[in-house]
Amino acid sequence: MSATRQTDIEQVLQDKASFSHFVRENIRFSDTDMVGHVNNTAFAVYCEAGRVHFGRSLPIGDDSSYGGVLARVEINMRAEAHFPGVVEIGTGVVRVGQTSFTLGQGLFVDGACVATAQGVLVAIDPETRRPTPLADTVRAALTAQLLPGLTG
Amino acid sequence: MSATRQTDIEQVLQDKASFSHFVRENIRFSDTDMVGHVNNTAFAVYCEAGRVHFGRSLPIGDDSSYGGVLARVEINMRAEAHFPGVVEIGTGVVRVGQTSFTLGQGLFVDGACVATAQGVLVAIDPETRRPTPLADTVRAALTAQLLPGLTG
Amino acid sequence: MSATRQTDIEQVLQDKASFSHFVRENIRFSDTDMVGHVNNTAFAVYCEAGRVHFGRSLPIGDDSSYGGVLARVEINMRAEAHFPGVVEIGTGVVRVGQTSFTLGQGLFVDGACVATAQGVLVAIDPETRRPTPLADTVRAALTAQLLPGLTG
Amino acid sequence: MSATRQTDIEQVLQDKASFSHFVRENIRFSDTDMVGHVNNTAFAVYCEAGRVHFGRSLPIGDDSSYGGVLARVEINMRAEAHFPGVVEIGTGVVRVGQTSFTLGQGLFVDGACVATAQGVLVAIDPETRRPTPLADTVRAALTAQLLPGLTG
Repeated sequence: MSATRQTDIEQVLQDKASFSHFVRENIRFSDTDMVGHVNNTAFAVYCEAGRVHFGRSLPIGDDSSYGGVLARVEINMRAEAHFPGVVEIGTGVVRVGQTSFTLGQGLFVDGACVATAQGVLVAIDPETRRPTPLADTVRAALTAQLLPGLTG
Repeated sequence: MSATRQTDIEQVLQDKASFSHFVRENIRFSDTDMVGHVNNTAFAVYCEAGRVHFGRSLPIGDDSSYGGVLARVEINMRAEAHFPGVVEIGTGVVRVGQTSFTLGQGLFVDGACVATAQGVLVAIDPETRRPTPLADTVRAALTAQLLPGLTG
Repeated sequence: MSATRQTDIEQVLQDKASFSHFVRENIRFSDTDMVGHVNNTAFAVYCEAGRVHFGRSLPIGDDSSYGGVLARVEINMRAEAHFPGVVEIGTGVVRVGQTSFTLGQGLFVDGACVATAQGVLVAIDPETRRPTPLADTVRAALTAQLLPGLTG
Repeated sequence: MSATRQTDIEQVLQDKASFSHFVRENIRFSDTDMVGHVNNTAFAVYCEAGRVHFGRSLPIGDDSSYGGVLARVEINMRAEAHFPGVVEIGTGVVRVGQTSFTLGQGLFVDGACVATAQGVLVAIDPETRRPTPLADTVRAALTAQLLPGLTG
């Protein structure tokens, strides 16, 4: 399967088996809101936790160009989450471009997908502050983490 | 102009003049992160503030079906924001569907667009907890707030 | 030792060995601020996480009067904390009064105390919304969790 | 009146007329929790906003030693706050010591005090990272902002 269409990608992200990298975050009482469930902005916090730890897990050293900036994030809320609980955040690679790449994520509570997310990160030249091509080591590390059925 | 394509919509959202509804939020010190700028998840908080106050400003009474659930949010980060400062969050309507609608937002600091966002809200039947058609009053109120060049 | 003075209590709270109840929270990237360390308000979030889970661990059933309201919190910041890391939050009882009780906490990163905290919770009558005496089961459960050297 | 006792200080802080420096923060939807009111940790965020802007308002220049570290904060919750609303945060000086000072705060919603707070800040030598005496300009600026009835 070549999941090139957006609907295909979202199906991959809803499947916990797609991911090999996970971060576990306790749902905090202060993550909830007056509706009684976890506030949507806490989902954005969980996604960031996953992205940052995924980046730190790549074998690319400290001086690489990985540390790009988040240019775009989209989150699809698929079920409510409640306190107390634990969110398991799976993170992998959806696409590797010239100067940017896309991470895909699934958020799971008790095994059920409560949200999927995609985040686009852009490599930035530290001097010019302009987009710059991904370093070869970064490109290789990201390509090795492409999610099942996604061809980069 | 009929801004039906996503790129067109994003151009509308980057233009502060597109909006007639604004909320102003102080950037809080705790909105920043160790990079030195406003954390991306604070942008999600600003967007929520705009969405909620926009909904409360609609002439639809308290018992309407407006109070849907956020099904999807996407945020395009376009510039860094820093403490101290004020974010002006413009909110309008991008699309009115059968059981859902899309709000479009522009976030501005000192007049410059730092982010655009779109959020999809789904009307939910309070008993069945399933999507339900938008009430006529809600549909009319939303249609009246369509952003310039967007035809619903 | 009878730790009746405030300075004595704070010494007890700085000693990780004083606690038998712990919650572990990942430091989140968004817990940091532009100074480069964990923002002080995140310490307040860690303390709440500890208080809530401590309360849920008490053998008092669901219908008890434990669920009081937080009337007062004080936090002593003793060292900086940084991302990434894990905060171990120890919680115990400092004092059991007629209508209120005080929880004491120590926050530890890599074994070192980064903060101590005390929180006063007041039992509230659900009908009158006024302070009400602690139920006997709650009083007994709290007294059993008094920290070493503290006599209630 | 010389408000030297803690109870006296807390009475001063509950009186909105005590303050001449105010910051206004919108209560954000995400400041609420599943109890239905503003979460106590949001009160800590409001206090920080007040402290930071108060410090920036002092006539002490940028290179002073004001920028100390928060060593201790205590918050007394006096009433619930709800969304939507605006919190007015009054900040003044409670005490000026040799190497530290204490700020006092009152948080008001619709004119009613919902919380009082005190925060101890310590001046830190940027090289040794140890407490250092307050600069004369800082001491003078703080002393000029002592709250009514407080003698430093």
